[in-house]
Amino acid sequence: MSQFWSPAVRELTPYVPGEQPREKLIKLNTNENPYPPAPGVEAVLREYPVDHLRLYPDPQSLALRQALAREYGVEAEQVFVGNGSDEVLALAFQAFFCHDRPLEMPEITYSFYPVYCKLYGIERRALPLDQQWRVDLDAFTTESGGAIFANPNAPTAHGHPREAIATLLERLTDQVVLVDEAYVDFGGESAVPLIERYPNLLVTGTFSKSRSLAGLRLGYAIGSRELIEGLERVKDSFNSYPIDSLASALGIASLEDREHFDACRERVITTRERTVRRLAELGFEVLPSQANFVLARHSRHDAAQLFVGLRERGILVRHFNTDALRGFLRISIGTDDEMDSLIEVFELLCR
Amino acid sequence: MSQFWSPAVRELTPYVPGEQPREKLIKLNTNENPYPPAPGVEAVLREYPVDHLRLYPDPQSLALRQALAREYGVEAEQVFVGNGSDEVLALAFQAFFCHDRPLEMPEITYSFYPVYCKLYGIERRALPLDQQWRVDLDAFTTESGGAIFANPNAPTAHGHPREAIATLLERLTDQVVLVDEAYVDFGGESAVPLIERYPNLLVTGTFSKSRSLAGLRLGYAIGSRELIEGLERVKDSFNSYPIDSLASALGIASLEDREHFDACRERVITTRERTVRRLAELGFEVLPSQANFVLARHSRHDAAQLFVGLRERGILVRHFNTDALRGFLRISIGTDDEMDSLIEVFELLCR
Repeated sequence: MSQFWSPAVRELTPYVPGEQPREKLIKLNTNENPYPPAPGVEAVLREYPVDHLRLYPDPQSLALRQALAREYGVEAEQVFVGNGSDEVLALAFQAFFCHDRPLEMPEITYSFYPVYCKLYGIERRALPLDQQWRVDLDAFTTESGGAIFANPNAPTAHGHPREAIATLLERLTDQVVLVDEAYVDFGGESAVPLIERYPNLLVTGTFSKSRSLAGLRLGYAIGSRELIEGLERVKDSFNSYPIDSLASALGIASLEDREHFDACRERVITTRERTVRRLAELGFEVLPSQANFVLARHSRHDAAQLFVGLRERGILVRHFNTDALRGFLRISIGTDDEMDSLIEVFELLCR
Repeated sequence: MSQFWSPAVRELTPYVPGEQPREKLIKLNTNENPYPPAPGVEAVLREYPVDHLRLYPDPQSLALRQALAREYGVEAEQVFVGNGSDEVLALAFQAFFCHDRPLEMPEITYSFYPVYCKLYGIERRALPLDQQWRVDLDAFTTESGGAIFANPNAPTAHGHPREAIATLLERLTDQVVLVDEAYVDFGGESAVPLIERYPNLLVTGTFSKSRSLAGLRLGYAIGSRELIEGLERVKDSFNSYPIDSLASALGIASLEDREHFDACRERVITTRERTVRRLAELGFEVLPSQANFVLARHSRHDAAQLFVGLRERGILVRHFNTDALRGFLRISIGTDDEMDSLIEVFELLCR
């Protein structure tokens, strides 16, 4: 605490990201992709004209937005890009959710959302999940100042189909509905095709998971021109050039290789299904997953103790120490070999 | 304007960065360095392990902070890093200047500061420059909620010596004093050595000018542990990983080459002095510069017309359309060849 801090800063509760260990571990804790980025990314990296780095990037990041627009079948004016989808989300909170009505979100969802609420002084209304640990879309009200949820949700891994989102949007017309699709490429259904029909729908995405580029910090939002313009107004009052030239070039190269993208996500899905079966055999309840992670709890073994047991044997997963999630482990899907190692340790720990 | 925007967003007046032209021009408008980054930057780029990009970066950016700490003779805990110094400045406004007392700044200074004030709802008190277009340090009051100025100042290019900053800090003890040193390496004197004596001093810097890495978006702040902790609290409530792994590695490589750094800035200084003399011969008044740009006005020729004349002949400089600066051009210092081309066109235009 310091006398020099702005008063509101004293009240902040920062988000705590998953550990980035310095020692060599099997890292199943931050939902990274176990496969490398598209080969074209390396080609661009090796040939990038270094002298170009002395110049500022394009403040509009037009080339990257055009590449995303091609990928999603929209216009560049319907695409916003930022320094990871976390920055895109933060700017969206400021652009759309600073109202005197509360922002509605699931009680269990990406734990950065409540942090943004505190940062921007937004009142938050938490909606319980349904009995199957799914986001309860019917619980969102027309009275809110906005609605946000991850789809598939984190860390519960369930995703609603596009039609369910459309039904919600038929009802919620006076506020922005933000659907965070960080994990959609592992079996979910994207809501992007709905943006033409619903000017209040904003969909966010990231290069960090399905594109194996978490290290580069590239995220985006897709929505109506008026929502994108709102994001740009805030961004241009905060940081003119959030996307560096090199990251932009590498991100574009990644978008150009659909074959690699499809192959990697299919491998992750196949490994996930195999892992789910083996965890079930070991006595775990595993929530159905459309993401590159699973949320699982054991009927007889304490999650915190399992976490420690795994860590001692060189495997890092995520344990959330909250009332609702204390019984669970969130396990990212790695390679088949990595998941075999996980299962081996679980066989030892869950005997 | 959209019904979906947060009310405050409707009032924002975004910062307008200098143009990044798509055609081939002699670009003297955004104070970029005309020389390439250190050779070690290219070496790292060519060898960087691409597979590493699938992992999240270190959220603390420890390696980059340690490299900066070595460079400045401070501890890593006294260093904060961000996505360009613009992001560092924005986070500092939120961390330190959101008080009910006004933030004091020179009337003419980096034009992003008033934009941040609007973004965060901070009242701004503008202090006139002195008769020689210098920041008037005596004008800052002990009653403010904070003080900020660029040193050397932009776009006036004058820098105060360290002792003048120390004198200010003897007087201003109850608020953060932010000294923005984006241009200090071209002949200014850094205030960093004062941070041990003054816990309320925050100094910001950038890799964009003297290190020829504007394209990478790397900025930093150096100050007491309590100020750095305040910045980290805001950053961790906004974006956990603003620095991408690759940019961090390239920035570190740049810090390791002092010889290249010194050679480039000396070349810029030499070219600046030569340019100042030639502009004076052509009838320009050129404000004394310790930066990699000059602010100049002609006794007989209108700056807006000169701007257009230069642009028509393939040379881009910066013209600010404000009451105080309308008579001036801000001209970045390029290579000797580029400045020769500028002078040639001026010889034509100012006959």
